[in-house]
Amino acid sequence: MLHAVIMAGGSGTRFWPASRRDTPKQLLAVSGDRTMIQSTVDRVAGLVPDDRCTIVTSQRLAAAVRTQLPDVNLIAEPCKRDTAACIGLAAIAVLAKDPDATMLVMPSDHVIETAAAFQQAVTRGERLLAEDSQRIVTFGILPSYPAESFGYVQRGKPIVTDGQVVGYEVMTFREKPDLPTAREYCQSGSFYWNSGIFLWRASLILDLIRKFEPVMAAHLDAIGAAWGDASIDSVLDEHFAAIIGKSIDYAVMERHDRVCVIEAPFEWDDVGSWQAIARLGEPDSRGNCVRGKHVGIDTKNCIVYGSDDHAIVTIALDEMIVVRAGNATLVAPKHAEERVREAVKELERRQLDEFL
Amino acid sequence: MLHAVIMAGGSGTRFWPASRRDTPKQLLAVSGDRTMIQSTVDRVAGLVPDDRCTIVTSQRLAAAVRTQLPDVNLIAEPCKRDTAACIGLAAIAVLAKDPDATMLVMPSDHVIETAAAFQQAVTRGERLLAEDSQRIVTFGILPSYPAESFGYVQRGKPIVTDGQVVGYEVMTFREKPDLPTAREYCQSGSFYWNSGIFLWRASLILDLIRKFEPVMAAHLDAIGAAWGDASIDSVLDEHFAAIIGKSIDYAVMERHDRVCVIEAPFEWDDVGSWQAIARLGEPDSRGNCVRGKHVGIDTKNCIVYGSDDHAIVTIALDEMIVVRAGNATLVAPKHAEERVREAVKELERRQLDEFL
Repeated sequence: MLHAVIMAGGSGTRFWPASRRDTPKQLLAVSGDRTMIQSTVDRVAGLVPDDRCTIVTSQRLAAAVRTQLPDVNLIAEPCKRDTAACIGLAAIAVLAKDPDATMLVMPSDHVIETAAAFQQAVTRGERLLAEDSQRIVTFGILPSYPAESFGYVQRGKPIVTDGQVVGYEVMTFREKPDLPTAREYCQSGSFYWNSGIFLWRASLILDLIRKFEPVMAAHLDAIGAAWGDASIDSVLDEHFAAIIGKSIDYAVMERHDRVCVIEAPFEWDDVGSWQAIARLGEPDSRGNCVRGKHVGIDTKNCIVYGSDDHAIVTIALDEMIVVRAGNATLVAPKHAEERVREAVKELERRQLDEFL
Repeated sequence: MLHAVIMAGGSGTRFWPASRRDTPKQLLAVSGDRTMIQSTVDRVAGLVPDDRCTIVTSQRLAAAVRTQLPDVNLIAEPCKRDTAACIGLAAIAVLAKDPDATMLVMPSDHVIETAAAFQQAVTRGERLLAEDSQRIVTFGILPSYPAESFGYVQRGKPIVTDGQVVGYEVMTFREKPDLPTAREYCQSGSFYWNSGIFLWRASLILDLIRKFEPVMAAHLDAIGAAWGDASIDSVLDEHFAAIIGKSIDYAVMERHDRVCVIEAPFEWDDVGSWQAIARLGEPDSRGNCVRGKHVGIDTKNCIVYGSDDHAIVTIALDEMIVVRAGNATLVAPKHAEERVREAVKELERRQLDEFL
């Protein structure tokens, strides 16, 4: 049966100051009323009931996630060990419930529209797995601009079923490229953005981790052997911490020979940073995307993100980001927004924990 | 005897959002611990005791002024009618206590250093009045740059007493000039900034208002006749409101033939707008003037004004002003700071009173 695994351990640093250590991006309602993680669960409603939904998050965030989603399964990682270990752990939990499980793995902090189109893509992926259970299915996004901040997937031969192209074989995965390379990718017509959404048999992904990452797999198998036992907490603490973190792309995707990609029929945004607010929102006639009370004098193409009980006044600004959330304010030109990370690191260095 | 009159009815709009309708600039501690109006009273301590200090303010601010300065005399104007009426009203109050009073008139929102140098200048002014009780004494500031936002005073013949230049006769008053004119004034060496600080006999200033502004004087005399009576509140309400507002410069200074100017031996700043913070503060090695918690990434020559319980993070900013005070935030380039007024007007137009 189909199970959903939602990875929700991210810190959302670039979304500071809205995103904080205890309430990162995935726990916020970035667009609409539901938080991003709630929307991620909503998105598979009908396809995957709550009791087959598993959220993997950090111990720090577990209680907050539980409050937002009381009915799903929850795994709290004792520490961060990148996506391969996270996915391996989730596979153990899913297989313990359903040895025949298919696993849909999704980040918790993407905006995807529509849910119907997303479910259609997942169903298409299930067809690819029904044909060949050794496949890994990825979902590729047609690039709308030469992004330097995403990984790319190059498609190869089409996979045709009943005279219809269902997906493509993956030729290569590419790390975040520089701008000229990203432009080449876009022009080639054969590259997709790697959405970080995967579909596979739960037993296959564990087998592949065993094959490509035997040391990591030994720790995961130790955890798997103790699953459901009284000793699980201490075993998990010990063996998960002992894993050397690696992304699932490095550990498995780039090494397996039967990876395929489905061209996403849905709108996708990774909401990576403040500019996403401009992409997701409706800019006004002067190109400003505004949340909360704002008075703009000679202000255009700005992102202003505040609240109704606080007035943000901007004068003679263009292409700027002004964010006020809780006890912190950020002011930066749009082009410098990647440097929010630096600022957060500086707050850490100065031990200004109350603002993190 | 010497009496001090402090005009404290200003709105300090350009200092928004620190300056608000109910707590304008003069009621704030802009530099140091004491508020500007408290510092103004402190400045004449020793020269003028509290019971010879009179503050003229608005009814809206009277209670707050009383809290900050419990021991001085207080007059609450029923409405704003510019400086001539304000000064006339103060003269009535002062003369009621002391028919022989000399009146030192000061704005409540200037930074002046040192108090000793200021008192020395006042004492020099008293010498000029002792020689000729028909004189008006003004205090001129040697321009440090060609300011367009101040009025200017052109000095004429020196006034020499005991072989010493005590002051100068005033040749002309000039309104706020444009930049080329301001440059000429500065180069000429004979122009001062008009500090808005005056010294005169209280009876003289009322006589001069009677001479140059008989209609205004009639209203003031009606108020003077009722001073100390039970009817004063209603008489004041009626006659003060009936006055057509005029500045003391227009009404008297530019028309009287015995105005003199003393070159100020003190440092002076009118704290007119946010740039004053940079002038008064100690910029750090990157040229930033900071109050409160600030993390600046690639930030220089900025004014950042916040508090210790709120972090302001700025990235890649130069020559900007970022102010967070109470329930409002201002972001503007330094060169556009005069437009804070526009923003405040827009808040008024949109009836966003809670931010004013």
